Amino acid sequence: MGGVDGADERYVVGVDYGTLSGRALVVRVRDGAEVGTAVHEYRHGVIEAALPDGGPALAPDWALQDPEDYRDVLRHAVPAALADAGVDPSRVIGIGIDFTACTVLPTLADGTPLCEVPELRQRPHAWVKLWKHHAAQPYADRINAVAHERREPWIGRYGGKISAEWQFAKGLQILAEDPEIYRRAERFIEAADWIVWQLCDVETRNVCTAGYKGIRQDDRYPSADYLTALDPGFADFVAKLDGPLLPQGARAGTLGARAAAWTGLPVGVAVAVGNVDAHVTAASAQALHPGRLVAIMGTSTCHVVNGTHPAEVPGMCGVVDGGISPGAWGYEAGQSGVGDIFGWFVTHAAPAGVDGHEQLTALAAAQPVGAHGLVALDWWNGNRSLLVNHDLSGLVVGLTLATRPQDIYRALLESTAFGTRMIIEAFVEAGVPVTDLVVAGGLTSNRLLMQIYADVTNRPLGIIGSAQGPALGSAIHAAVAAGAYPSIHEASAAMGRVHEDAYRPDPANVRAYDALYAEYRALHDHFGRGANDVMLRLRAIRNAALDPAAAQTDPALEVLA
Amino acid sequence: MGGVDGADERYVVGVDYGTLSGRALVVRVRDGAEVGTAVHEYRHGVIEAALPDGGPALAPDWALQDPEDYRDVLRHAVPAALADAGVDPSRVIGIGIDFTACTVLPTLADGTPLCEVPELRQRPHAWVKLWKHHAAQPYADRINAVAHERREPWIGRYGGKISAEWQFAKGLQILAEDPEIYRRAERFIEAADWIVWQLCDVETRNVCTAGYKGIRQDDRYPSADYLTALDPGFADFVAKLDGPLLPQGARAGTLGARAAAWTGLPVGVAVAVGNVDAHVTAASAQALHPGRLVAIMGTSTCHVVNGTHPAEVPGMCGVVDGGISPGAWGYEAGQSGVGDIFGWFVTHAAPAGVDGHEQLTALAAAQPVGAHGLVALDWWNGNRSLLVNHDLSGLVVGLTLATRPQDIYRALLESTAFGTRMIIEAFVEAGVPVTDLVVAGGLTSNRLLMQIYADVTNRPLGIIGSAQGPALGSAIHAAVAAGAYPSIHEASAAMGRVHEDAYRPDPANVRAYDALYAEYRALHDHFGRGANDVMLRLRAIRNAALDPAAAQTDPALEVLA
Repeated sequence: MGGVDGADERYVVGVDYGTLSGRALVVRVRDGAEVGTAVHEYRHGVIEAALPDGGPALAPDWALQDPEDYRDVLRHAVPAALADAGVDPSRVIGIGIDFTACTVLPTLADGTPLCEVPELRQRPHAWVKLWKHHAAQPYADRINAVAHERREPWIGRYGGKISAEWQFAKGLQILAEDPEIYRRAERFIEAADWIVWQLCDVETRNVCTAGYKGIRQDDRYPSADYLTALDPGFADFVAKLDGPLLPQGARAGTLGARAAAWTGLPVGVAVAVGNVDAHVTAASAQALHPGRLVAIMGTSTCHVVNGTHPAEVPGMCGVVDGGISPGAWGYEAGQSGVGDIFGWFVTHAAPAGVDGHEQLTALAAAQPVGAHGLVALDWWNGNRSLLVNHDLSGLVVGLTLATRPQDIYRALLESTAFGTRMIIEAFVEAGVPVTDLVVAGGLTSNRLLMQIYADVTNRPLGIIGSAQGPALGSAIHAAVAAGAYPSIHEASAAMGRVHEDAYRPDPANVRAYDALYAEYRALHDHFGRGANDVMLRLRAIRNAALDPAAAQTDPALEVLA
Repeated sequence: MGGVDGADERYVVGVDYGTLSGRALVVRVRDGAEVGTAVHEYRHGVIEAALPDGGPALAPDWALQDPEDYRDVLRHAVPAALADAGVDPSRVIGIGIDFTACTVLPTLADGTPLCEVPELRQRPHAWVKLWKHHAAQPYADRINAVAHERREPWIGRYGGKISAEWQFAKGLQILAEDPEIYRRAERFIEAADWIVWQLCDVETRNVCTAGYKGIRQDDRYPSADYLTALDPGFADFVAKLDGPLLPQGARAGTLGARAAAWTGLPVGVAVAVGNVDAHVTAASAQALHPGRLVAIMGTSTCHVVNGTHPAEVPGMCGVVDGGISPGAWGYEAGQSGVGDIFGWFVTHAAPAGVDGHEQLTALAAAQPVGAHGLVALDWWNGNRSLLVNHDLSGLVVGLTLATRPQDIYRALLESTAFGTRMIIEAFVEAGVPVTDLVVAGGLTSNRLLMQIYADVTNRPLGIIGSAQGPALGSAIHAAVAAGAYPSIHEASAAMGRVHEDAYRPDPANVRAYDALYAEYRALHDHFGRGANDVMLRLRAIRNAALDPAAAQTDPALEVLA
C-alpha cells in the first residue's frame, strides 16, 4: 500500500491482539480506508507445555502468554504498518486496541506483570492467563454453585453460568494454587486494559471486559459477602480489579513517551479505552443497531448483538449495558469450536487424495441438503453456548459404508450452523430480536458455509467488508477517542463496511434443514442436559486412563461414582 | 503344494462359494491336511448396477449373481486345486460345498435357472439374489407384521424377526414386482442346494438353509393360511421350496457325468448335502460341542454355537434342530458390519501418512483402554444382531480436537467387540451357555483385535488352525458323506484344527471395558429401540434427497410422517 492522500488527511491506528500474533492497521479517518498493515507473531506464542527458558512444566489445559510479546507488537507491527501505509506518523490522531478476552494477568501497582518480577518468573501463576487457559474449571464450578445457592442477582446476566475462562475463575485458581502470587498481585487486569496502560501510562478499565469477564453489573462487582463465601481469602479480589471505568469509545489517555518511542507515533495522540476483538467488530461491520447479530467466525465463533433492554438468555456469555456501544445492552454468545473442527477434520480424518478445505468444500457442495444422511454435534472443543460445559464432546450419527469424507465434512459445517441457530433461538425466545446476520472472520471465504448459515438460520446474511474486522473496529474507536466523530455510531457509519444480503436463504433448503435441525436439537438436549452424560464419563475415563494418579483427585471423576 | 503321500491315502474336496469367488481345497481324509487349493473369481462378481451385457439398470440395494459363475468354479478351481495338490483324482472319495446364504434363485423343474431361459434373461428377478440383496425389506416387514399378528409359533425361533435377506422376503418380492417370474419359477432354491443338484443331478435340500433361511421348524414350513395372509398368490410358495430334505453330513448323491467332466473327479464319488459357509466352519474349528461359539470374522461376522435345547434369543438369526450338526440345536447370530467398517475407515477416514490396517493397529495398540475417550456404535451396515434393522447407522461419540485417527480406529475395533458381547449376553440370558470363543476368518491376524475380543467378552479365545475354515469344513462333511467317518463329530476331531486359548482376557482390561461396554449398551438401546429413531429418519431423509421421486413411494419415509 502507499499514501496518495492529500496533506490534510488524518489517520488512526487499530491494533488487534490475537492468540498467536498482533496486527496493526492504519486507517483513514474520513472513510475507513485501510492504507497499511503489518503483523507481528508472538515470540512465545501460547505457552502450554512449560514456562520459557527451561521453566517448570505446566499441567494439562494450561495456556499462558508473555506480556513482553504484546509490547513487541507495538515495537514492530505499528511502525511496519505505518511504513506500509507510507503515512507520516504526524498525521495519526489516535490509536485503539482490541484483545482476546478473558486474557488476564496479575501485576504490581505500577502495572509491572508479576512474571517480570525476577523472583516470581518461575511461577506459572505469575504469567498471563490466555483466554483458552481451561484449568480453572473446578473454580468456575464453585463460583456457579455458590452464586446459585445465594441467588446472586447477576448470575442470570451470564446465562446462569460463569465460565472457567473468566476473571473470577482464573483469580480463584491463583488464590487456591499459589496464594503468594495472589497476595503479591496488587492489580489483576485484562490484557486489553494492561496494554492501554502501557500506551498511555494511566490505568483504566473498560466497560466491556469489566461486564463480560469481570461480573460487573448494575454499576457494581459481586459483593464482599459473596467473595467471602467463595473463600475468605478472596474477599479483596474486587479491590484488585476495580479501577477507573470508562465507556467504549472513550479516551483512556494520550500516548506516553515510552510508547511513542516504541510505535513511532507522536506523544499525545488519543488512546482509546481497551476493547475485545469480537465486540469491536460490531463497529466495523456496521452492526450496532439492535437485531443485527455479528458472528466472528474463526477457530471458534463469537456472536455479539445489541438489544434495547436486558434479558436473561440461557447459556449466553453475558449481557452488559454499553458492552458493545453506549446506549444499548450488548449481548455476547459463543461457540467454542468451529474452524478448529474443520481443521481437525482436514488434518486427522481426510484421506489421502482429499486434501484441504477447498477440495472438501467443492465435493461437499455437490449434493442436496440431507443427502449425506448425517448429523453431528459440534462439541469437539466442548460447548460454551447454551450448555456451557467444556467436557462435552463431538458426536457423528448416520455413518454408513457409503459415507464419504465430504459427507462428514459437510455435516461438520452444518453442525456449527445448527449451533448458531440454537443461540439465535435462545435470544429470540428471551425477547432479544435477531433479524439478520453479518459474518466476519476467516471463514467468510467459504461460500458453501455461508449459504448453509443463511439456510439453517433462515436469515439474510451479510459479509463484513474488511478482512481485518477487529483492527478496523479498533481504529474506529480510536477515531472516536480522538474526537473525529461524536460517537461510535457515526464513526461506524463512515468507516465500517458490510456487503449487505450477500447470502439469502433458499426456501427449499430452509425446509430441508428444519428437519435436520430438529434432529440436532434432540441430540443436543439428550447429550447436553443430563439424559445421558456419556460424554462426561468418557472424558473422565480418558483422563483416568492417561493419568491414573491425577485421576484420584480429579473432580470430574465424580461423575463415575 | 505337492503330493508325497502313500498310495493308500484318500482325499476329499471342499468348495467354498464366497461373495466374489469360489475356492476349492483338497484335504487328506486321514488328518485334514490341506494339500492343494485354488480360487476362481466370478466373472460377474456382484451384479449391482445393471444386468450384464447392457441389460436393464437395477434399483439401489439390489445384489444379483450369475449361476454360470458358480459352475465355472467347478470347471476351474477344482481341477486347479487337484493339480496344486498333485493328487490323482482317483484318490478323491467325496466332494462337499458350502455357500453364502441366503443366496437363492428361481429355476425350472429341471434346475435350469430362470435367468438362463432366453426370454427371461433381461428380467432382474430371474437372476440369483445374493445374500446381500437388501431390496426386499418392505416384504420382510410385512412377513414379520403378519407373523406377529397371527402369533405364528416359529417367529420366536428367529429372534422375532425374519430378515429381508431370507427366502420368504426375496420370494415375496418376486411375486409383488414380477409375478410372471414368480409363476415361471417351478423351484425356488438356495444356491447351496442348486450347485449340489448340478453336481449329482438330484435335487436335495439341506436342513441348515431350510431352517435358517426357509422358516422350516418342527418339520414343517409356515402354513398355507399364513402364506395366504401374506398374499393369496403366495400360497404355493412352500411347494416351490419343498424337496427331499437331508441332514448335514448326509450324502446328497454321487457325482454325475456332467460334473465329473467339469471337475476332473471320478463319476460316482460322494456328494455331501449343501451347507452354509459359517455353519460348516464349526466342524473345521472343532467347535461342535455346546457352549463353544464360533465367530467367523470377515467383512461381517457370523456367530454359530450349538445348544442342547431350543430357546428364544432376542435378535438371533435363528435356531435350527441339527442346523450345525445332527443331535444339537444350532444357533446363529450375526453382525452385519465388522471388517467392512475397518475397511471403510482406512479408505475414507484415515489421513495421508496413516495408511493401512497394520499401521493403524500398531498406533491404536499403544494406548491404555479408554484413553481415546470414544465409544462407537458399529452399525455402518445396519444391525442384524439384537435389533435386526438394516436402516440403523453408525455413531461415534467423544470426539475432541485431540482425537487421532488411531483413536477412532480402535474405537471401531472395540465397537464390534461390544456388538459380539451383546450377542453373547443375549444367548446367556436366554439359557444358551457361551463358555469360550473360537475365531475364524481373515481378521484373526489382527492380534490387537483378538485381544480386545477376549477382554471385552471376558472369555478365552481360540483361533481356528486353518486359513480356509469353510472349505475345510466342507471337506470334512464330504468325508462323512463318503462314509470315511461315522459322524461329523468324529470327522471334526480328526480333520479340524484350533489353537486353544490363543488369547486370554486380561483382568484389568476386562474391568476397563466393562465401563465402556455399559456406555455402548446404553447408546445401543437408546438409538436402537425407539427412544430416538434419528438414524431411521436420517436414512429416509437421505433417500428422499437422493431420489425425490422414489421417496414418494418409499415406505421407510413413513417414519417422517
